[in-house]
Amino acid sequence: MLLTWSTAQRGVPQLARPSNGRSLRPFEPGDHRCRWKLDEVDEEIPEWMSAMVRTQLPPAQRVGGGLCGDQRWEPAASVKLNMVLTRIGLAGLAVMGQNLALNIAEKGFPISVYNRTTSKVDETVERAKLEGNLPVYGFHEPEAFINSIQKPRVVIMLVKAGAPVDQTITTLSAHMEVGDCIIDGGNEWYENTERREKAMAELGLLYLGMGVSGGEEGARNGPSLMPGGSYEAYKNIEDILLKVAAQVPDSGPCVTYIGKGGSGNFVKMIHNGIEYGDMQLIAEAYDVLRSVGKLTNEELQQVFSEWNKGELLSFLIEITADIFGVKDDKGDGYLVDKVLDKTGMKGTGKWTVQQAAELSVAAPTIAASLDSRFLSGLKEERVAAAKVFHSCVFEGEPVDKKKLIDDVRQALYASKICSYAQGMNLIRAKSIEKGWDLKLGELARIWKGGCIIRAIFLDRIKKAYDRNPELSSLLVDPEFAKEIQDRQSAWRRVVCLAINSGISTPGMSASLAYFDTYRRESVPANLVQAQRDYFGAHTYERIDIPGAFHTEWFKIAKQSKI
Amino acid sequence: MLLTWSTAQRGVPQLARPSNGRSLRPFEPGDHRCRWKLDEVDEEIPEWMSAMVRTQLPPAQRVGGGLCGDQRWEPAASVKLNMVLTRIGLAGLAVMGQNLALNIAEKGFPISVYNRTTSKVDETVERAKLEGNLPVYGFHEPEAFINSIQKPRVVIMLVKAGAPVDQTITTLSAHMEVGDCIIDGGNEWYENTERREKAMAELGLLYLGMGVSGGEEGARNGPSLMPGGSYEAYKNIEDILLKVAAQVPDSGPCVTYIGKGGSGNFVKMIHNGIEYGDMQLIAEAYDVLRSVGKLTNEELQQVFSEWNKGELLSFLIEITADIFGVKDDKGDGYLVDKVLDKTGMKGTGKWTVQQAAELSVAAPTIAASLDSRFLSGLKEERVAAAKVFHSCVFEGEPVDKKKLIDDVRQALYASKICSYAQGMNLIRAKSIEKGWDLKLGELARIWKGGCIIRAIFLDRIKKAYDRNPELSSLLVDPEFAKEIQDRQSAWRRVVCLAINSGISTPGMSASLAYFDTYRRESVPANLVQAQRDYFGAHTYERIDIPGAFHTEWFKIAKQSKI
Repeated sequence: MLLTWSTAQRGVPQLARPSNGRSLRPFEPGDHRCRWKLDEVDEEIPEWMSAMVRTQLPPAQRVGGGLCGDQRWEPAASVKLNMVLTRIGLAGLAVMGQNLALNIAEKGFPISVYNRTTSKVDETVERAKLEGNLPVYGFHEPEAFINSIQKPRVVIMLVKAGAPVDQTITTLSAHMEVGDCIIDGGNEWYENTERREKAMAELGLLYLGMGVSGGEEGARNGPSLMPGGSYEAYKNIEDILLKVAAQVPDSGPCVTYIGKGGSGNFVKMIHNGIEYGDMQLIAEAYDVLRSVGKLTNEELQQVFSEWNKGELLSFLIEITADIFGVKDDKGDGYLVDKVLDKTGMKGTGKWTVQQAAELSVAAPTIAASLDSRFLSGLKEERVAAAKVFHSCVFEGEPVDKKKLIDDVRQALYASKICSYAQGMNLIRAKSIEKGWDLKLGELARIWKGGCIIRAIFLDRIKKAYDRNPELSSLLVDPEFAKEIQDRQSAWRRVVCLAINSGISTPGMSASLAYFDTYRRESVPANLVQAQRDYFGAHTYERIDIPGAFHTEWFKIAKQSKI
Repeated sequence: MLLTWSTAQRGVPQLARPSNGRSLRPFEPGDHRCRWKLDEVDEEIPEWMSAMVRTQLPPAQRVGGGLCGDQRWEPAASVKLNMVLTRIGLAGLAVMGQNLALNIAEKGFPISVYNRTTSKVDETVERAKLEGNLPVYGFHEPEAFINSIQKPRVVIMLVKAGAPVDQTITTLSAHMEVGDCIIDGGNEWYENTERREKAMAELGLLYLGMGVSGGEEGARNGPSLMPGGSYEAYKNIEDILLKVAAQVPDSGPCVTYIGKGGSGNFVKMIHNGIEYGDMQLIAEAYDVLRSVGKLTNEELQQVFSEWNKGELLSFLIEITADIFGVKDDKGDGYLVDKVLDKTGMKGTGKWTVQQAAELSVAAPTIAASLDSRFLSGLKEERVAAAKVFHSCVFEGEPVDKKKLIDDVRQALYASKICSYAQGMNLIRAKSIEKGWDLKLGELARIWKGGCIIRAIFLDRIKKAYDRNPELSSLLVDPEFAKEIQDRQSAWRRVVCLAINSGISTPGMSASLAYFDTYRRESVPANLVQAQRDYFGAHTYERIDIPGAFHTEWFKIAKQSKI
């Protein structure tokens, strides 16, 4: 019997290649249908074909026999398949991968999926069925997976950063051809992406490092996408990305070609650093309201819901309000009070802080958020220290709740401006170092939807860079400057209130110190430089005369003492 | 004519080897004097010998001729030289190298010195002559330099970290033999030291990475030394290091074998990070006293001199007092006011901050000092920003100077405890990671003298670790805990005063936030972890039930809204 199908797709007939190396020959020249000996299905039919049979195609239609090469096959039970190569592949089917695959399929792009642990493949195909018979085709073997994709093939990987990415690349690239493309959608260190892009280029393959933000929900319904690397590869799948990304009214899909090399990963890394900052600042606002203002969870839910209608409108404020409304299903009260105060982390925040140091860019708000996570992990030490310092508990005077809530909102907003100023300046510094020519306003635009830090606030940032693409800092944009000025009294009140209440607002106070340092013509660094010249002859500049100077401070001081 | 000398040293006769490969033969068996044809001195006499003649030896004595091998030389003008191989060598003769060489020579260890730019060699030899005919022998050629040192040969390098160290190692090791040792005395990244130690071991050479702190003055008169790497190599020169290091009454020489691998460099790096913190905290104290307290330089000099008699007694406080006393030699007023407020840096502070992130250890005070240096560098941006925010100038009420000075002293001291707690915990974390088994109390001891952070305060740290070597943080040592408690009101007053005066004290406020976080049983990290579970299914722990939990926050919140 014969298996017959067509490999025509999008008007371009393609000759499918079974994994055993035998070519499938058309019935006759110009005919895109091919034949295969069906009674060998179980052994010889390539897995990608049988997978198609299993998961993709409408009930097979029996057709007559015919010639295959110069051999004639008896017509017994042959099948006509409308075999269509998929548009794209995705490897790595943890939740993020599954969701992104379903999202792509839902937008009308047939997608092949693969995972080393094959149960994940079947799970994904099953979900695709349940979520609306989406065109998701599962494969258990990498070769079949790759061969099922139309050329030039594009495969998105969503696997753990580091070694697993290298392994997956090795597995996939073995079956790929010149012009094909691999996209890493994980939170990868940008230098790894640059290394891999070079290695792939030597094989004639294209490579993209694409930041994907929005968590599971974003991946499924529209993430913010930050693809960087080969522009040619980007253009090959731009049509997909534009549809798959989150769509924001008035500002379009949350995707843009970020730039060359590892820029997509780098920008995603800073995005995550900013996310750390946002979460920490919100936690501090919560802490002040809870610890000093004595607000209940009900009140906190109201406050955050209210805040989410104004300048703070954002995904993180919204989910924070939600969180305060969730009751504990294992006991009395609210769940948030039962959650242990230990925060996990996965690396991008750490990298952001390390890059800030590398680039000589101050990012104290983001660093404070990372340090807070570190200190949160020392639960046992904190419990012990709390005993040592048990007498340092401050019972301040009762506060005006309404005033406090308003102050905290302002402090949060002003601190947030500082945090974003740091993040954007980190990106700018790296862009200059690497010659990436990144567009800061465009980054703010693609963060407006889909991602974790999505917020109305980002529109203001975009506008600030539209007004002045060379803006040295968001702080000095006229609109932000005015907003900070309007809020600084409340900001100072909140930080001092926290300090005098014996609680810490490391992010807010680091932001405030950042602001007060940046806006000061003269900082006390003159003393530090004088010290360095005193003990290390590091020389100093003067405010009045150009040049480098060294003074024998010790000798002069000794003389004047005599 | 004949050149005759003895190679006996420390009782062990050695046969010197000229660079042309010819052995120098003794006059007769058992006689340590050797002969050389003196009328070939200019061409054939090895450079290391002629260097000895030039720089080292008492006026040559003419002696009679004799046999050299089977050749007889006419006695014309022969010289008897008490040729002694040196005990150690030093390569890299910038100021630090010169000073350390002179220090070693002064302690009674004849030293050979070498520098690629040979004028530095002659300069050093000249200085050795002027500073008391110290036994410093200069060499222009690396081979002659190495051959002039007794075996096993030890050479200290003081060259710029990175590539220059590798180059110097290549140059020196070419002439060294199994058992010889190279010591890097620069501020090198510890992993480079570990790489080089391995490479040297393959050649049979020993390697040490030795932190040297104390600046130029310390190098000359007694630095703090932090040697790490080969213990065998350390034992070879322990006698030298014990004499060369700073000597502190009651606690001995400021040197100890730090540990294996790159531990010496790592400890020195953290020492420098702590130094950054100290300098920043002093600068902030200066800033508050100057900007809010309106103290003059004369008053500042008095204040710091006074502080230097108490708990803050330290090198940095001492030199700060000195600095305020130095008048400008190019105009009116004090020099410190003419120094540009831009602080340079060289890398170790950056590494410290990056390592803190790598080790998941919060080090916000040290990070704040690094950020302050970064922001100090943005002078032009700060000048521009000051114009934008010109209206944010706060004229607070006049303060009680005496009270302010006392408060600032306490704030400075309490912040300093936090900074050192961070630094020591960084060292402990790395020691655990690398299995170095570092002794924190012993490190505090060797920092008590010689180095930039030397202070009476370090004795308290040593005692804290003597009391409890497993101390989780200096903050909870009973004595430090009491000191912080006693000072916290003043500390909070100073930080709030700075905030309300519109100036920043990033180091002090980061320290305070660190303290207030570390001593709190419950921080608001529960909210952050709930957020992470909400959008990323990262799971959370509970305060009451063991295990990892995940909640469908969104679904529950949506249901409760209906």
